[in-house]
Amino acid sequence: MKLNQNYANLKDSYLFSTIAKKAAAHIEANSNAEVIRLGIGDVTRPLPAAAIEAMQGAVTDMSQAATFKGYGPEQGYPFLREAIRDYYATKGVTLDANEIFVGDGAKSDIGNILDIFAKDNNVIIPDPVYPAYLDANVMDGRPIYYIQGNEENGFLPMPGAIEAQNIKPHIIYMCSPNNPTGATYNKEQLKAWVDYALANKAVILFDAAYECFITNDSLPTSIFEIEGATKCAIEICSLSKVAGFTGVRCGYTIISKELVVDGTSLAAMWLRRQTTKFNGVSYIVQKGAAAALSPEGLKQCRENVEYYLENAKLISKTLTELGIWHTSGNAPYIWLKCPQGLSSWEFFDKLLAEANIVGTPGAGFGSCGEGFFRLSAFNTRENVEKAMERIRKVF
Amino acid sequence: MKLNQNYANLKDSYLFSTIAKKAAAHIEANSNAEVIRLGIGDVTRPLPAAAIEAMQGAVTDMSQAATFKGYGPEQGYPFLREAIRDYYATKGVTLDANEIFVGDGAKSDIGNILDIFAKDNNVIIPDPVYPAYLDANVMDGRPIYYIQGNEENGFLPMPGAIEAQNIKPHIIYMCSPNNPTGATYNKEQLKAWVDYALANKAVILFDAAYECFITNDSLPTSIFEIEGATKCAIEICSLSKVAGFTGVRCGYTIISKELVVDGTSLAAMWLRRQTTKFNGVSYIVQKGAAAALSPEGLKQCRENVEYYLENAKLISKTLTELGIWHTSGNAPYIWLKCPQGLSSWEFFDKLLAEANIVGTPGAGFGSCGEGFFRLSAFNTRENVEKAMERIRKVF
Repeated sequence: MKLNQNYANLKDSYLFSTIAKKAAAHIEANSNAEVIRLGIGDVTRPLPAAAIEAMQGAVTDMSQAATFKGYGPEQGYPFLREAIRDYYATKGVTLDANEIFVGDGAKSDIGNILDIFAKDNNVIIPDPVYPAYLDANVMDGRPIYYIQGNEENGFLPMPGAIEAQNIKPHIIYMCSPNNPTGATYNKEQLKAWVDYALANKAVILFDAAYECFITNDSLPTSIFEIEGATKCAIEICSLSKVAGFTGVRCGYTIISKELVVDGTSLAAMWLRRQTTKFNGVSYIVQKGAAAALSPEGLKQCRENVEYYLENAKLISKTLTELGIWHTSGNAPYIWLKCPQGLSSWEFFDKLLAEANIVGTPGAGFGSCGEGFFRLSAFNTRENVEKAMERIRKVF
Repeated sequence: MKLNQNYANLKDSYLFSTIAKKAAAHIEANSNAEVIRLGIGDVTRPLPAAAIEAMQGAVTDMSQAATFKGYGPEQGYPFLREAIRDYYATKGVTLDANEIFVGDGAKSDIGNILDIFAKDNNVIIPDPVYPAYLDANVMDGRPIYYIQGNEENGFLPMPGAIEAQNIKPHIIYMCSPNNPTGATYNKEQLKAWVDYALANKAVILFDAAYECFITNDSLPTSIFEIEGATKCAIEICSLSKVAGFTGVRCGYTIISKELVVDGTSLAAMWLRRQTTKFNGVSYIVQKGAAAALSPEGLKQCRENVEYYLENAKLISKTLTELGIWHTSGNAPYIWLKCPQGLSSWEFFDKLLAEANIVGTPGAGFGSCGEGFFRLSAFNTRENVEKAMERIRKVF
């Protein structure tokens, strides 16, 4: 019996475990230290009331034979797929509910969608970015190429970065708004990517997990706002950020009927993959998700999103006052350039030692993240305000 | 961009869609026909009260900042892994909670576990069996070999069936109690399989989804009741049948620390797979699962299991009276030999036309299922009694 040898090529990620260890050591050495954590990409506010009510109702459904639900459709209940379709209609994107595949989160779908692609496709990954894209492809042994985000391109690499490397692109990852930088492509930039993918017969895997944080109305919240995208892109999104579902687990993948390669429908392949290796999302969770995406639910979601965005504004304001370069505006993250020429980890250590604040070193998201740092707005207003006072004192 | 060409080798399964079509046509042609469905492998009774209560509490937790839960551990909350460990202790199996990996169902884990194995392993699949084993391996392009279940071996093929084909076994699927036949290996038989796997350095993927239906105390409900299994077997199980969680979605995979191949821990590989392509099961679901596996919850689960088993007994009694060969006793299914020399589908048609009963043709579970038929005990007592009256009239 042979194991998948590609796993031997995975690099251990010590990012979050190192952060946890350093924070624990600091707290032990400074017993009075009141550490504020602005490091985690996880929501902190309770679920919208509409989702709570719907899930209480769904649990009650499961307690009575007449309303009990067994196996549901692998693709998701029509009531949820229709709610997602209606959510996209508010973005001006017309979908058929059959093009929507409900899953248990963007991370699962982003990993599992690779099943439908051959192992020898060239994979293009932006740097810095969410680390799971890389590992999922290393596990399959695909050749991986990076395109660099930096201050010059506003952390928004364009197709020229592929052409410059003389690579034939097959699978292109995009994350907009980007985790960790918050950088968000505009329509013209996305159009250039769609045209490039069509011209090169590449497929774009578009991670839209942070779409709800886009505040600038002119920026696209879905790649399907771009003409031609239905023929070259798969969009993967999640309820985690818009509805605070990180612990509830619900996401979805959108594949248009028009996405056909060599006569094969990618939506049909994904459906086959899911009906073979997945059995649908919990009925209770789907009821909560549909309620969160209802007009009333979305109003409540919006309040939570605004709360985090207000936190982000406070952080940005402080950094602007201090003259620290950073991006902000369309994400729950502030991506800053470490002051005083510090490296990502040097800044981490200084921030922890002198301000009792835990953040995330940018180097953990790729080599282009070195010298940068991510601060998260997922916390209480009170903690963010306190953290900003401390940063003002230190810098 | 190249697609995964192995998908072209998948055969379309028309089993359940054909059943649905035939049933619908029958109902349309016979407007007064009161059709009873004994075809589906899905529970029908409401969840145990303990699970309902725990999930209501968990939903409430999500409504308040102080008790809100975001991302949980990918491997599952300790409270659930400990509840599963304690459940196994009642079987006489000692596990470490770290050897238990919580997932969203056995179907997902059975498919996804293949990620950690190379694509050129020989795969051994019993026939008849649950169809997802086959398709998940076809998608990866692995060579597949069948071992036959039949009346002579009580639908329990033994290692000799592999040796007779002169195959080097790498990955061996086992399903005990078997879906669809209900056939259950005894300790001596499982010991022979474990010894064979160890001698051949093969890995057994042991699907224990139907373990709760084993009524004969001498039969093992886990492969880890067998000495040596920790070094060669992965057990995959589910809350779907024991706790009625088919629509709630929770399962688990057990990999011992002792399962090491070429110096590599398979548990470590699986953890890496799950932390990369999975983000844990819903907190709400995990709370419900832990409550279902509590002593009080298990008592309630047991009542539901007994109910289905009583249905199975009624079906078995009728078939015995009619002199129809069948297996029964440790499963919610009755596996019968079609009377009058009928094929699986001929019997399906006759049962539907003359008794208004929908069952599942055995041929749908593999070529060795031809001439056999599966009746499910997942229904109300009233419907099962009514169905048996009808069968008595027809045969």
